[in-house]
Amino acid sequence: MTSLQHVNPRVRGIRVSPQNVLQSLAEHITQEITQGAHKPFKEVIDVSSGDPHRAGMKPVSFVRQVLAVCLYPELLKDQSLPLDVKLRAQRLLEACDGGSVGSYSDSSGLLHVRQSIAEFITKRDAGVPSYAKNVFISSGSQKALMIIVRLLASGEGETQTGVLTPMPCPHTLPTLLDEAEVALVPYQLVEERGWAVHLEELHRAVTTARGHCQPRAIYISNPGNPTGHVQTRESMEEVIRFAAAEGLLLFVDEVYQDSMIGLDREFISYKRVLFEMGKEYAETVELVSSHSLSCTSIAECGQRAGYMEIVNMDPEVMHFVDTMLCTDVSTPITGQLALDLMVNPPKPGDPSYDTYTQETLLTQTTLSQNAQRAVELLNDLPGMSCQPAMGGIYLYPCLHLPSEFRQLAKMLEVEAHVLYCQKFLEEEGVLVGVGHDGGTASSHHVRLCVHVPPDTMEEVLTRLRSFHLRLMDGHCNSD
Amino acid sequence: MTSLQHVNPRVRGIRVSPQNVLQSLAEHITQEITQGAHKPFKEVIDVSSGDPHRAGMKPVSFVRQVLAVCLYPELLKDQSLPLDVKLRAQRLLEACDGGSVGSYSDSSGLLHVRQSIAEFITKRDAGVPSYAKNVFISSGSQKALMIIVRLLASGEGETQTGVLTPMPCPHTLPTLLDEAEVALVPYQLVEERGWAVHLEELHRAVTTARGHCQPRAIYISNPGNPTGHVQTRESMEEVIRFAAAEGLLLFVDEVYQDSMIGLDREFISYKRVLFEMGKEYAETVELVSSHSLSCTSIAECGQRAGYMEIVNMDPEVMHFVDTMLCTDVSTPITGQLALDLMVNPPKPGDPSYDTYTQETLLTQTTLSQNAQRAVELLNDLPGMSCQPAMGGIYLYPCLHLPSEFRQLAKMLEVEAHVLYCQKFLEEEGVLVGVGHDGGTASSHHVRLCVHVPPDTMEEVLTRLRSFHLRLMDGHCNSD
Repeated sequence: MTSLQHVNPRVRGIRVSPQNVLQSLAEHITQEITQGAHKPFKEVIDVSSGDPHRAGMKPVSFVRQVLAVCLYPELLKDQSLPLDVKLRAQRLLEACDGGSVGSYSDSSGLLHVRQSIAEFITKRDAGVPSYAKNVFISSGSQKALMIIVRLLASGEGETQTGVLTPMPCPHTLPTLLDEAEVALVPYQLVEERGWAVHLEELHRAVTTARGHCQPRAIYISNPGNPTGHVQTRESMEEVIRFAAAEGLLLFVDEVYQDSMIGLDREFISYKRVLFEMGKEYAETVELVSSHSLSCTSIAECGQRAGYMEIVNMDPEVMHFVDTMLCTDVSTPITGQLALDLMVNPPKPGDPSYDTYTQETLLTQTTLSQNAQRAVELLNDLPGMSCQPAMGGIYLYPCLHLPSEFRQLAKMLEVEAHVLYCQKFLEEEGVLVGVGHDGGTASSHHVRLCVHVPPDTMEEVLTRLRSFHLRLMDGHCNSD
Repeated sequence: MTSLQHVNPRVRGIRVSPQNVLQSLAEHITQEITQGAHKPFKEVIDVSSGDPHRAGMKPVSFVRQVLAVCLYPELLKDQSLPLDVKLRAQRLLEACDGGSVGSYSDSSGLLHVRQSIAEFITKRDAGVPSYAKNVFISSGSQKALMIIVRLLASGEGETQTGVLTPMPCPHTLPTLLDEAEVALVPYQLVEERGWAVHLEELHRAVTTARGHCQPRAIYISNPGNPTGHVQTRESMEEVIRFAAAEGLLLFVDEVYQDSMIGLDREFISYKRVLFEMGKEYAETVELVSSHSLSCTSIAECGQRAGYMEIVNMDPEVMHFVDTMLCTDVSTPITGQLALDLMVNPPKPGDPSYDTYTQETLLTQTTLSQNAQRAVELLNDLPGMSCQPAMGGIYLYPCLHLPSEFRQLAKMLEVEAHVLYCQKFLEEEGVLVGVGHDGGTASSHHVRLCVHVPPDTMEEVLTRLRSFHLRLMDGHCNSD
């Protein structure tokens, strides 16, 4: 029998995060409730990460209708389905090998969908051209990032590849870098400036890293996960000039590009900014931008599809992106078709246009209102402060915990914000995300997904308020 | 810009197989035809690997109907859909978080589906119990194998993990082992005994390997890919005793378990044989068995789902299987639901039963008839011999090529069977698989998928016959 000592040391080394422990606790509590245990709450609400359909958000009808017809083409005869649904399904089926969603696709994705994506990007970026050959479909933005990071991974010690990583960062990122065996080079975002990227901090990070590893890429999340920050054009230009000067590949996670908080706010992509900075940058800076089905108003997490666009990469190097995608054989076809629907929604005049627009607008309005309502309430609480979110689906409030509570945590050998999350879960049945600030014990944060129905948001805030005030009251010695 | 020299050496080292080159050539020819080029054939037929829907096989209505309803639950009101379709869709939706296929699942899969799979296995194996906790859903059998191989990978040189691998083996396997950095330890299957596993050869392989690497697992494909061989119970018992004596994990790829050639032939699983050998083996031999949606009569390759069952693995080690599955976040939900339909089809009396049975029986009959017809024809050709297939979807004929042709290949610095495949593709527009016999130049094989519609099979055989006779005629000096 394979013994633990024979397990791949790299696999054994994958960190178990406190979040995993809390997740198990949440499952345990849910089980207790199912078995009739009496709790002060009826069910556990999980707002630790984004899974809108699980939370009760409704799917977009147009997407589901087209996919249903693609799966069961007999529905083309169905009189109750809109004409544009049927036409689109027909067109998508023609794009599938053998006219069936049951066939594999090329490992980089269905050409038709890659073309739709390239057209979408070109339009989004006010005409900056995008080409299907630079668009790679994969099972999600995590996968895309994994491929790029694995591509760059090499060396050890001083020569080990390093990736500049924001602190805080998406909670899955440190494990992903671990697995790819690249060094995480942290750069701190500036909370008091709404979690903005600070140029001097980038310089500090890269300078400090040299000698310990070889920084070869910088990761940016914009709109920010979990910070909710959206960069200004000036800040993006700074990052681009920095990446150019330091010879870094720029990986931008732009999966929340359609989740702007405040409906008048417009998303500007790194690609557009790069190309508007002139040839010196537009033709040299290696840029990879990822987007995903899971993170939009459509929120089809279960379909597993996303894409990345790569510009300015040596074709010989880009070839290996394709090679690595082959390992997955092919991305799920229904997910790929959903990507097509995401980037090419019904147009004015199409039978599905009004319903589509109402449904996605409702989602976006809910998101904005949830975020604004939550930020207000959190900032009204003693011992809590929260930067307003400008985009994305998370809030990342800071906890100013009473010293007695922090001492209790110390005694229990657990970080104070982890203990906070655990008690909140046990006492009020809400699972929030444990903040990850790169091990600086001076500040404590939690992550809160606001892409949930309004009544769920209200319930979470009520329970949070009640728990937090009780905790602050119990430990008067706040600071 | 990232230069080639900075690309991860492990990624750079991934072999480009001659098959990839032929695949590109096939795409090129298809493009030429689209652009109006005159060729002696109207289209390229690809029988190099299994993709039944691309080849024109029909999907199973019950599967597609249930998935369509799950995607668009408004269809529950549709009067034209059978009642059991709607009831099943309702049950499956209840098993999804938030009642939606748009949510993530646990990384090891939906519990409901894992339970269905465990029940299926128990029934298949005449009561040998199977438990949902030992069943792990992933995006396919390739992924399952990758996870187990990565789990075991460690060491270098003499201590590097080795995996006993049949020759011939599934064409994707050597690359997969390469990527996981484990050593491929070849054992030769015995062609003249229908590609049976030979115990003495296993002993030879493991003995030779020791000192070069540390053999830790044996891979078996049964029914065999690409050989079409199905092992006898006695042969399986020999392999199990061998694995037990040598302390090897036994990974059995049983994805073609419902593709028996000859409808009276019954599949026996390794799990069943193991458990019927008594406690000495049943409680000690570490067994992983994989199955996949892509390889059954349902053949939903585009949905990307499969599972593995693990028995006798240390729970502390098995924990890391879960950890590695987390990297993929979750397997596509529609694929998982299709797995449930695969293992739990309509029962006698259900409204969909007759159609389901007719459709799957037609597929199985087609497969059997194709295989038998093709074997006959191939064996009738001069300079060609083919073992009859007992299961699976491939034939693996041996080419006895004229020495002139082999000299030509040598001059062109290409293996003779690769040149054969290339010329067949160029002259007749059929892409077959390049055989992989572990680099032994003495024998030449090609791989032929027979899971295609009967008229496609007929067309392939006609073109093959014509090409092969021409080639043999042109080089009279056969041996």
